[in-house]
Amino acid sequence: MTPEATLARFREYMVGPTRFMNLMSCFELGIIDELRKNPGLTAAKLGEAVGAKSDAVEQLLQLLVKEEFLAYDPGSGGYSLDALAAVESADLERVLAMMDLVKVCILRQIFYLTESVRAGTVVGLKELYGFDGTLFEAVAEHRDLRESWGRCMDAGTARVDPWFFENVDIPAGSRVLDLAGNTGLGAILAYRLKESPGLRVTTFDLPEKEEECLRNFREHGLAEQCSFIGGDVFDKVPEGFDVVLVKHFLTLFDKSEVVKILANVHKALNVGGQVNVLVPVFQDDVREFDSRSVDFYPAFFLGCAMGQGGPQKLSTWQACLEESGFEMTKVTVEDPAAIPADSLPLQAVLCATKTA
Amino acid sequence: MTPEATLARFREYMVGPTRFMNLMSCFELGIIDELRKNPGLTAAKLGEAVGAKSDAVEQLLQLLVKEEFLAYDPGSGGYSLDALAAVESADLERVLAMMDLVKVCILRQIFYLTESVRAGTVVGLKELYGFDGTLFEAVAEHRDLRESWGRCMDAGTARVDPWFFENVDIPAGSRVLDLAGNTGLGAILAYRLKESPGLRVTTFDLPEKEEECLRNFREHGLAEQCSFIGGDVFDKVPEGFDVVLVKHFLTLFDKSEVVKILANVHKALNVGGQVNVLVPVFQDDVREFDSRSVDFYPAFFLGCAMGQGGPQKLSTWQACLEESGFEMTKVTVEDPAAIPADSLPLQAVLCATKTA
Repeated sequence: MTPEATLARFREYMVGPTRFMNLMSCFELGIIDELRKNPGLTAAKLGEAVGAKSDAVEQLLQLLVKEEFLAYDPGSGGYSLDALAAVESADLERVLAMMDLVKVCILRQIFYLTESVRAGTVVGLKELYGFDGTLFEAVAEHRDLRESWGRCMDAGTARVDPWFFENVDIPAGSRVLDLAGNTGLGAILAYRLKESPGLRVTTFDLPEKEEECLRNFREHGLAEQCSFIGGDVFDKVPEGFDVVLVKHFLTLFDKSEVVKILANVHKALNVGGQVNVLVPVFQDDVREFDSRSVDFYPAFFLGCAMGQGGPQKLSTWQACLEESGFEMTKVTVEDPAAIPADSLPLQAVLCATKTA
Repeated sequence: MTPEATLARFREYMVGPTRFMNLMSCFELGIIDELRKNPGLTAAKLGEAVGAKSDAVEQLLQLLVKEEFLAYDPGSGGYSLDALAAVESADLERVLAMMDLVKVCILRQIFYLTESVRAGTVVGLKELYGFDGTLFEAVAEHRDLRESWGRCMDAGTARVDPWFFENVDIPAGSRVLDLAGNTGLGAILAYRLKESPGLRVTTFDLPEKEEECLRNFREHGLAEQCSFIGGDVFDKVPEGFDVVLVKHFLTLFDKSEVVKILANVHKALNVGGQVNVLVPVFQDDVREFDSRSVDFYPAFFLGCAMGQGGPQKLSTWQACLEESGFEMTKVTVEDPAAIPADSLPLQAVLCATKTA
C-alpha cells in the first residue's frame, strides 16, 4: 500500500463517527419515513414535516445522496428514496436495531477505549453512567442500554441459534446442560429445535436467574422437560450430563478464563461427553475475505461490554478446547455469503468430546 | 445499487465508531511507537511495554493487520509496521491531530446530533460540558477542547491560507479588512504573503479580541501596518476599505445569515471594492468525485460546532454573493489531487466585486 493510499484509508477512519450519526439522524428525525410516504419533497417541506430547519435537513441529506441511498432532482429540488427503496422492511429493521446498538451502547463509551484497555474494565460505563461492571450487568439497571441491547440480541439470536442447532448432534435421550443459559431461552430452543426423543435440558446460571427461568419453562409448557441449576462456571460445573452447550459466552473472556471454564466443563462430563461451543471467529489470516468481525468486536468487547474478551482465531478456540482436555470432532464456520450483508459476526460451532 | 450492496454499505457505517477508536487507541497506547523502535515484538512483549494485557493488545492489532497498516508473522508471533512504515512523520502528525479532533470534539457530542438539529444548538456541549453555546465559544473555557481544536486548526490554516492568498488579487496600496479576523493572524499573513507595497490591513472582530490582536501585531513588528476595529458583522461592517477578506467564517452559518453578513460587507464597500471568500464546498453533483467534505462537515457543524452552518454547493455560495449585490469575478476550487489524501475539506476561493 502506498503512503497516499494509507493516508486515504486514514481519512475513511476519521469520518466513521460523523458518517454513522449523519445516517442515523436521518432515520431518527423521520426523514426517511417521510420520503417513503411522500417522494419528491424538498428540504423545506421535509424540514416542516420533521420539525427541523430546512438548512439542517439539506446538510444531512448530502451524504445520503452521495451514497445513492436517496436521489436528488436538481430541477424540482425534491428528494426521494433511491437504493433505500429496494431494501426489505425486515432487513431495514434489523439494520436499524444494530445502528441503535452502535449509538446507545458504543458511540460515547468507546471514547474511553484506551483507558478501558489499561484498566481491564469498561471505563465508559463508569464515566457515563457511574456504573462499575460490564454492559451485561448494566442493562439490568439502565433502561436505555437494556432496550437497545435487547432488541439487537433478539434479532441476532433468531438468526444464529437455529443455525447452531442445525450443526450440533444431540443424541436421543441426552441430558443436556446449557451453560450460562441465562433465563432458559436457550434450553427451550434446544428442546424445540432438536426434537430428540427423551431430551432433558438444564439451564445453568447464577442462582438469581432461577425464578425467571422456571417461569419461562412453565409458560412454554416445558416444566417437566427443562430444569435449572444455580452456580458459577468458574467454581464448578454440575455433573451427570451427556452434552454441554456453550453459546454466546466464551467471547466475553480472555483466553486464560476461557480455558478455566472449559476445564470445569471437562471435569464435569463423563468420558464420551460432548461440548458444543458457539463463538464468533476471525479467520486465521485476518487479511483473507471476510474478517468482518475485526472492525467491530475487539473495540466493542474491550471498550463497551467487558473490558476483556473478544472473538479469537479459529485455531485459538481449538487450542483452548484441546488445552482443557477435549478432542475436536467438528468445526463449522458461517458462510459469509449465507448471512445478511449487514451482519457483523461470523460465528463458528466447535464440537469436541471428552475422550479420557 | 442492489439491496445486498446497500446492506453491505450500512455495515461500513455501523463499524465507523469502533474502527476509528480501535486505530486511535493503538496510537494512544503507544503500540505504534513501540513497534517503530522494536519491530517484531509479540503481543505479550507489547503488552508489557505499553502497560496493557496482551490479550487486549492482540485484539486491537487484528484490525491494523487486516488493513495492512501492520504486518503479523505467524511463525514468531511478532508484529511490525507494514504500510505505516512508509508514512512520513509530518503526514502522520497531521493525521493524528485530526483524529484527536474527531475523538475529543466529535465522538461523544455527535450522539446528540438529532437533538442538536431539532434545537439548532449544540446539545452535546450542553449534555457533556454543561456549556450553552458553540464549540468556538466552548474552547475558551475547556482546555481539552481548546488543545484538540487548536492543534488541528493550526495544521489546516498552514495548508489553506497560503493557497488562499495565491488565488486572490490584492492591488498595491489597498486598504484591506480581515472580517472576523480573530486575533490578527490572518492580517499578519495577508501582509506577509501578499507583499503588496503600501498594504494596510485591519482586523475586524468582537471588541474583546482587541488586546490580544494588537499584541500580536506588535510582536510581529507590524504595529504600523496592521490595526484593529471592534464590532459585530451582523450589525455593521466598517467602511473605507478596498478589499474585504472572509476566511473560515461563512460556513459557520445557515444561508440566511450568510446573506446578512455579505449584505453588510456590500453596504460598507465603495463601488469597485472586492470581497474574497474562503469556504469549504460540495461539488454541485455530490455523487461526483471527490465530495469528501460530505462525510464530515454537515454532522460536525450541526452536531458538534454550531447547531447550524456547513459547507454549501459552489452554486449556493455564488448565489449568496449575488443575492447580496456582488458580481462574481473568479472562482477557484482546490484540486483533490493536490491536497493530502487524508485531508477532508475541499476549499474554494470566491472573488466578487461591488459594481453598483
